Amino acid sequence: MSLSFEQNFKLGILGGGQLGRMLIQSGVDFNIPFATLDPDDHAPCSTLAEFHHGKLTDFDTVMKFGAGCDVITIEIENVNTAALKALAKEGKKVFPQPEVIELIQDKRTQKIFYRDYGIPTADFILVENAADVKKNKDFLPAVNKLGREGYDGRGVQVLRTPADLDKAFDAPGLLEELIDFEKEISVIVARNERGEISAFPVVEMVFHPVHNLVEYLFAPAELPQHIAEEAEKIARSIIHELKMVGLLAVEMFVTKDGKVLVNEVAPRPHNSGHQSIEANVTSQYEQHLRAILNLPLGDTTLIQPSAMVNLLGEAEHTGLAKYAGLEDVLKVSGVHVHLYGKRFTKPFRKMGHVTLMDADVERLKTKVAFVKKTLKVIA
Amino acid sequence: MSLSFEQNFKLGILGGGQLGRMLIQSGVDFNIPFATLDPDDHAPCSTLAEFHHGKLTDFDTVMKFGAGCDVITIEIENVNTAALKALAKEGKKVFPQPEVIELIQDKRTQKIFYRDYGIPTADFILVENAADVKKNKDFLPAVNKLGREGYDGRGVQVLRTPADLDKAFDAPGLLEELIDFEKEISVIVARNERGEISAFPVVEMVFHPVHNLVEYLFAPAELPQHIAEEAEKIARSIIHELKMVGLLAVEMFVTKDGKVLVNEVAPRPHNSGHQSIEANVTSQYEQHLRAILNLPLGDTTLIQPSAMVNLLGEAEHTGLAKYAGLEDVLKVSGVHVHLYGKRFTKPFRKMGHVTLMDADVERLKTKVAFVKKTLKVIA
Repeated sequence: MSLSFEQNFKLGILGGGQLGRMLIQSGVDFNIPFATLDPDDHAPCSTLAEFHHGKLTDFDTVMKFGAGCDVITIEIENVNTAALKALAKEGKKVFPQPEVIELIQDKRTQKIFYRDYGIPTADFILVENAADVKKNKDFLPAVNKLGREGYDGRGVQVLRTPADLDKAFDAPGLLEELIDFEKEISVIVARNERGEISAFPVVEMVFHPVHNLVEYLFAPAELPQHIAEEAEKIARSIIHELKMVGLLAVEMFVTKDGKVLVNEVAPRPHNSGHQSIEANVTSQYEQHLRAILNLPLGDTTLIQPSAMVNLLGEAEHTGLAKYAGLEDVLKVSGVHVHLYGKRFTKPFRKMGHVTLMDADVERLKTKVAFVKKTLKVIA
Repeated sequence: MSLSFEQNFKLGILGGGQLGRMLIQSGVDFNIPFATLDPDDHAPCSTLAEFHHGKLTDFDTVMKFGAGCDVITIEIENVNTAALKALAKEGKKVFPQPEVIELIQDKRTQKIFYRDYGIPTADFILVENAADVKKNKDFLPAVNKLGREGYDGRGVQVLRTPADLDKAFDAPGLLEELIDFEKEISVIVARNERGEISAFPVVEMVFHPVHNLVEYLFAPAELPQHIAEEAEKIARSIIHELKMVGLLAVEMFVTKDGKVLVNEVAPRPHNSGHQSIEANVTSQYEQHLRAILNLPLGDTTLIQPSAMVNLLGEAEHTGLAKYAGLEDVLKVSGVHVHLYGKRFTKPFRKMGHVTLMDADVERLKTKVAFVKKTLKVIA
């Protein structure tokens, strides 16, 4: 990849959401011509690059879109991997590789992979349907996950007592030991074609108590050094074993007795890396581009302690989005507001995020509280 | 400005060059829908936002473009200010104000403004033509400047001896005392409609010895504290006296005896603020947007010592641009490459820039030398 225009190069992104949008925003610096495919004509990417309307899960649509691209990547896992395999066979660069996307698309094959490669993860049982779940009431309390198409908190539920079994998912999935964790953390790793691997510092996520979405996070995570090192080691080993090219976000639990267990992974830029745009020497978006274009990976050092607050649509607000409290938030030093260009808000929709930086961690936490209290996405 | 989509808001930029491109890149975070006007269909902005083809100096073209916008700004001074005045009269927000652009477009009125407001600047004589210059041979050595349309080193020349008088510009301009300066510095200030003023820390520029273009710069400038304070005070007083809304770059000389003299100003994002994208809490681009949208101005603190190297087309290379040495440069920590999306290079064309950051100033200088030696724009 010479970063020259000579070959009419095009980088295709399956998905036109906020992750694609921030990828394009970063790629402007490298002169990269992008195309995106999304079923929503008003997707966040639609105004920033060549835009194609279409379903990501449709074979012919993905084939046709891919035909016009030189490198193809994703910003969402739920895509037609058969088409991506066919495109790779035709000589297109498809990163992450379709086989890796396929393995990760299904939480069942993900878990089997961890078990096969000795990667620490919560115990689990594969289930085919609700009846299967009910057979395993001795395994409760447990987390019942759908194998496929869970996203942003959907397709995941906790079954605590036999009475909860009535709501078991009636589709292939798994029952996972409920982990009494101390913290949820994430490490984003990258790997390029030449096999270089680089890891971002561990971040600590705080989830919305009901909606299972990241509410805010801190970087770096407040963890004993040996646990942070263990988490990085695990993340590196996963991307190495997958031989994946691109960015891999590895979400992990730290248990109360100090064990690190992999929860799940995402083979793309990730919510737990948004703050890297300002807070790290290289952002996760530039790192993904470097990885899939086989450029040297960038320095991931954290410049200053930082936090990221997701801007979720307020409950009971549906309609044209407005950002109440924005001015007050913009008065705070070290606050970076990122809006995703979504015209309409609905309850808990991811509408944007705010990155906060401060050399002083206590002051940083005060700023987080202020932003969470002040900035609201309403209709 | 509510940063909501409700009113089908549009921000128009006169000019589609790299300054507009980086302004759009920054504005993505605020959901701002942009339109740009430029005579070159392949201008750096053309792929990133709604693009209009047309001459910036043509009254009807600017009127027609402005009619579709709510706020209008510039990324180059050489625009039709009569049209901008008419648009302002119709109720469009035009920032910087057309009167300010007009005053700055002509280096003669700029100089008269400095004299009238007691702002320190080199002595000067207004000249109407070459004959006028020749009458003032006692004023040599001097700088002969065209009043209008000088840009990136064009329209400026040094006349040292009477023999040089033969090349005097034969158009309205000025003769300026040749300053035996120690350093060239710049302070970028911003002012919003409510009159808040904010200044970026002083930076130190090193110009190309022949082509009079910024070759590289360091932030912060290495200056005694009282000189830095004097420079900031001067820059603030200029934007205050102009009552300008937007960003104003104030280029100054520091003389060998420690005086600060204003050289010239630019009422827009400026080459001397590129590094602020990574190096300051708020970038000059976001600051310009905050100023013209009457939002609170951002914190301008420098996060780390930084440098900026302009990527100029190599001499004797004209054609499709290639970036030799890019991979080697991307291996260096704290290096951010910004390419401007210009398909063709020519000698000394501004093709991109590189920002470098390092907590250690000596290491930063070593990195600058490496980038200057390594990264070349060739055809």
